[in-house]
Amino acid sequence: MKIQAGIIGGAGYTGGETIRLLLRHPQVELAFVHSRSNAGKPLYAVHPDLLGDTELHFTDRIEQEADVLFLCLGHGESKRWLDVTSISSSVKIIDLSQDFRLGASIQGRLFTYGLPEINRENIRQAANIANPGCFATAIELGLAPLAAAGLLQEVHTTGITGSTGAGQKLQETTHFSWRTNNISAYKTLNHQHLHEIRRTLTQLQPGYDAPIHFIPWRGDFARGIFISSCTTVEQPLAEVQQLYKDFYAGHPFTHVAEEPIDLKQVVNTNKCLLFLEKEGDQLVVHSVIDNLLKGASGQAVQNMNLMFGLEETAGLQLKSIGF
Amino acid sequence: MKIQAGIIGGAGYTGGETIRLLLRHPQVELAFVHSRSNAGKPLYAVHPDLLGDTELHFTDRIEQEADVLFLCLGHGESKRWLDVTSISSSVKIIDLSQDFRLGASIQGRLFTYGLPEINRENIRQAANIANPGCFATAIELGLAPLAAAGLLQEVHTTGITGSTGAGQKLQETTHFSWRTNNISAYKTLNHQHLHEIRRTLTQLQPGYDAPIHFIPWRGDFARGIFISSCTTVEQPLAEVQQLYKDFYAGHPFTHVAEEPIDLKQVVNTNKCLLFLEKEGDQLVVHSVIDNLLKGASGQAVQNMNLMFGLEETAGLQLKSIGF
Amino acid sequence: MKIQAGIIGGAGYTGGETIRLLLRHPQVELAFVHSRSNAGKPLYAVHPDLLGDTELHFTDRIEQEADVLFLCLGHGESKRWLDVTSISSSVKIIDLSQDFRLGASIQGRLFTYGLPEINRENIRQAANIANPGCFATAIELGLAPLAAAGLLQEVHTTGITGSTGAGQKLQETTHFSWRTNNISAYKTLNHQHLHEIRRTLTQLQPGYDAPIHFIPWRGDFARGIFISSCTTVEQPLAEVQQLYKDFYAGHPFTHVAEEPIDLKQVVNTNKCLLFLEKEGDQLVVHSVIDNLLKGASGQAVQNMNLMFGLEETAGLQLKSIGF
Amino acid sequence: MKIQAGIIGGAGYTGGETIRLLLRHPQVELAFVHSRSNAGKPLYAVHPDLLGDTELHFTDRIEQEADVLFLCLGHGESKRWLDVTSISSSVKIIDLSQDFRLGASIQGRLFTYGLPEINRENIRQAANIANPGCFATAIELGLAPLAAAGLLQEVHTTGITGSTGAGQKLQETTHFSWRTNNISAYKTLNHQHLHEIRRTLTQLQPGYDAPIHFIPWRGDFARGIFISSCTTVEQPLAEVQQLYKDFYAGHPFTHVAEEPIDLKQVVNTNKCLLFLEKEGDQLVVHSVIDNLLKGASGQAVQNMNLMFGLEETAGLQLKSIGF
Repeated sequence: MKIQAGIIGGAGYTGGETIRLLLRHPQVELAFVHSRSNAGKPLYAVHPDLLGDTELHFTDRIEQEADVLFLCLGHGESKRWLDVTSISSSVKIIDLSQDFRLGASIQGRLFTYGLPEINRENIRQAANIANPGCFATAIELGLAPLAAAGLLQEVHTTGITGSTGAGQKLQETTHFSWRTNNISAYKTLNHQHLHEIRRTLTQLQPGYDAPIHFIPWRGDFARGIFISSCTTVEQPLAEVQQLYKDFYAGHPFTHVAEEPIDLKQVVNTNKCLLFLEKEGDQLVVHSVIDNLLKGASGQAVQNMNLMFGLEETAGLQLKSIGF
Repeated sequence: MKIQAGIIGGAGYTGGETIRLLLRHPQVELAFVHSRSNAGKPLYAVHPDLLGDTELHFTDRIEQEADVLFLCLGHGESKRWLDVTSISSSVKIIDLSQDFRLGASIQGRLFTYGLPEINRENIRQAANIANPGCFATAIELGLAPLAAAGLLQEVHTTGITGSTGAGQKLQETTHFSWRTNNISAYKTLNHQHLHEIRRTLTQLQPGYDAPIHFIPWRGDFARGIFISSCTTVEQPLAEVQQLYKDFYAGHPFTHVAEEPIDLKQVVNTNKCLLFLEKEGDQLVVHSVIDNLLKGASGQAVQNMNLMFGLEETAGLQLKSIGF
Repeated sequence: MKIQAGIIGGAGYTGGETIRLLLRHPQVELAFVHSRSNAGKPLYAVHPDLLGDTELHFTDRIEQEADVLFLCLGHGESKRWLDVTSISSSVKIIDLSQDFRLGASIQGRLFTYGLPEINRENIRQAANIANPGCFATAIELGLAPLAAAGLLQEVHTTGITGSTGAGQKLQETTHFSWRTNNISAYKTLNHQHLHEIRRTLTQLQPGYDAPIHFIPWRGDFARGIFISSCTTVEQPLAEVQQLYKDFYAGHPFTHVAEEPIDLKQVVNTNKCLLFLEKEGDQLVVHSVIDNLLKGASGQAVQNMNLMFGLEETAGLQLKSIGF
Repeated sequence: MKIQAGIIGGAGYTGGETIRLLLRHPQVELAFVHSRSNAGKPLYAVHPDLLGDTELHFTDRIEQEADVLFLCLGHGESKRWLDVTSISSSVKIIDLSQDFRLGASIQGRLFTYGLPEINRENIRQAANIANPGCFATAIELGLAPLAAAGLLQEVHTTGITGSTGAGQKLQETTHFSWRTNNISAYKTLNHQHLHEIRRTLTQLQPGYDAPIHFIPWRGDFARGIFISSCTTVEQPLAEVQQLYKDFYAGHPFTHVAEEPIDLKQVVNTNKCLLFLEKEGDQLVVHSVIDNLLKGASGQAVQNMNLMFGLEETAGLQLKSIGF
């Protein structure tokens, strides 16, 4: 029998991506999609690319028989929703917000940080997952092998994100006339993901307390994150490359490239690609992900696969957009 | 002494473009920019590219000593504003809305349709101008020589417009994540500009009553309009080309190209370029303009130049964006 | 046992898309990918998004045991290649070029026009397929129900295509600095796809000989085709809509939408969506496809599915890009 | 009498921009535009946006009576051209290549580094100018005030550039289908502009030898450069801001913004905008320019203005694209 999955907050971008993935997942049945404001409408009324894919409608009721719930709510809303909603303890929860990433618990539920490349065995045992942030995923995957080897020092990182990272709410910074052909910086040196990044890196390299300087930029594209992180490493490049390859050897979505990478290699996939360069003692790690997949809904499904003992890549062997 | 100009509704896109043009116009002083909601703020608080260009602030008062007012208000708002505002009859008015394009008058003010290529002598004598619509400008300039020669028949036209045509209001169809890489149709066969297009063409070719089928598309770029109009013409291409060249001979902004045209040839300029092709008895006229310049603020300044006896191109010899 | 598939000309855009599809097709094994100039290189050296997906290398030899060959060669090259290459008559061929779309045969091979919505039963029996052109697919699907009902009259159609339609060769019209934010027309009224369009429509509506006026535009996006076709139809809109719905009732990829459509609903999918509007006696049919999928490689795989008795949608239930 | 200007290498991007500027410069006459491969063609055959602006044709002869020559040649070609061409010593030269930026001389000509904000008095006296690189301009203007105050330490900088920075040559990295929606890194930590950057900063802060780590990215837009540079500064933000404002007080094109900046504020202008932020002891300086204007042709004209005693802003009060 298929795993019964429900989505809470199915009208937003991560909700839509989770729907798209679960509809095509061979071992999952999308039992219901919850959205208070859209209850009664077909899914394709909100996500019009689903026309022809499904006749499912949004509901405002929670079907308790679900095996797993994906919470695709805004930051702060997951906590509020769990506070007021009675969910059987047998239902697994994968929360895509930042509410539980730093270790908070609610109603006896403990949340495991869902970055499989670092935490796979714990995820397999977990009942509840705090799905990592998009920038956090790209930066952590770029630095984790160094931290695990105890080699991580001060980091300067710059990242650029697609507009879907800002959600579907209408805002001046997502107005097409402003954003097209434009670049801007925001949350300079104080992006909220720095907390989970530091937490993850410190778990890998106990005592790590060097500064991480992160400058995020808004890009003039819809999907994807490109990161370049710079740090000091004495080891030669070949040795560092081997370190990275060994670290990610058994992980199906994260790969160390031999050639320079570009963002579109991963858009519409669940992959993370890394590319390393050295000049003197400075190592630069470039990393790319799709912010809505490996940075959100794709990773959530990857976590579900692990939690339910499925193949880690089930339903996630996605055709890249290519162009 | 310089012409004193005021702008009513200076916070929107056409208001911003009019500011940009008037600030650089050698014979005009931008006396004031009115915006109720932004009164007291520097212009660059709303139009941040003006930083370093001017220290002028928005005002909520009308300076009566202005020689000319540009009304950069929404459709319907120009009429409302003129209804409740007392403006000396010596002040010339150039209205960028559609309120007076079909011949309505207000408080004794009659409005002249401000398409200089067709109406230049009347504009020179006019006290009030109804500035044409952006699609209307591009379509009319593409068809006027045929109509003036009594040759215009049924027309099929498709046009694509940049997002700035939809203004700065936040809307789902101007959300970056939706609009980028996207194309869509709207107001199929019933765009509101069809009224002024028909009126202009009928003035040129009395009795013209063949259908004009216009399909507008939303483009995934910010500025510009590209039009292809198809109609039946028996005359050979060379003859039609000569007709067009003769028609636009004395007009500094509208040119008939010998080679295929593309949108970016005119972006950030006040030009209209035309290119003609024939296959059998079917003539296709391609036309391109910048919707905010020849399609709005640039044409408004061109009209002002004519009304005040200035060189028609004054302040409008703009560097194209090129790329 | 899985169907053994080979690709001839695997380095181009349609070759790449065919690789991406076949790698994920549950009943196909991608046996080899032929490319003379890239022989010996891994596929991801040319299609870098495939990094992590496959270790297959390009070859310059033809493996005769393939069950089906996809010819992803330039126009004219398929014919030349089949002229000089000995292929067992038991090998099925799906040719993505235009070489055989108008009925030419070669070495005893007759080619069936591979538009399943019109020709499905013939495709099921076919040994060789001429895969339709991208613009042709979008225009034919937009007009076929009218033609099948004997209602098609003169047509005016405008279409816009993504840059991938022009292939990977470096050209001035695909230089980023020129194409971004730009629109242009080409092959006005004489696009080469008009031949296959007319042939298909005439097969559906014998004696049809009204003009089809087609104006193609180059768009400033990479993937997709948006078409608006205008024609005269006396029947009321509801009746025409029903006609279209009945015509496409059993076809899994082509759908008649109730709401206005946009290009991104189908990007990265094998779908065609249609939307109908009427004003007076004028019917406008909008249609959207992904030019590389339903307009090329996706339709090729759909044809393969039919030829081999597989589920028509096998390997083609693709997650749309959405954004 | 107007200054007679000639352009050598007028067919490329910087040549085109220099033409666009000089055609509109009130005190300059564009005497000739040299291009061996285009001799005899009208300028608009190569730069089609110039249609209607000028009837000038490319020439393959050098008119010796020019007062100033702009060399818009590729890197290395300026030196070769000057080696084989006899130019009267009374002709001033502004070279846009990198050939003379580090102090090389040729035929007795010494070249002054043409960054007016740092070197204005020398430029006024100069006979020959080495025009700065685009990335170099944006980075140097972002760091110069610190260096002039002796406060500059190690720098981490990331920059993103439009595709026009790569010129008009057809390349895989400027193919539209690849570049649109894409981000990539290149020349990581060893961009060639680092030499002139270090030279400029060392002149301002003698003995400065801390590392400058520069990671350049290719952006998916045509025009502009966005830079974020991070360094350690003990002084409070307000003090640093005042330092920057004082440094640029008399400079008409470079401004310190009070609000976050974005790239499009400067596109199609000769401006550089700066914005400063601090977090702990880390200062981040964001800077934006148009790579073809302040980063190339606009700065070249600014240098010409200074060399000939004109108003520094003459011909450079450009309307921004805005959108």
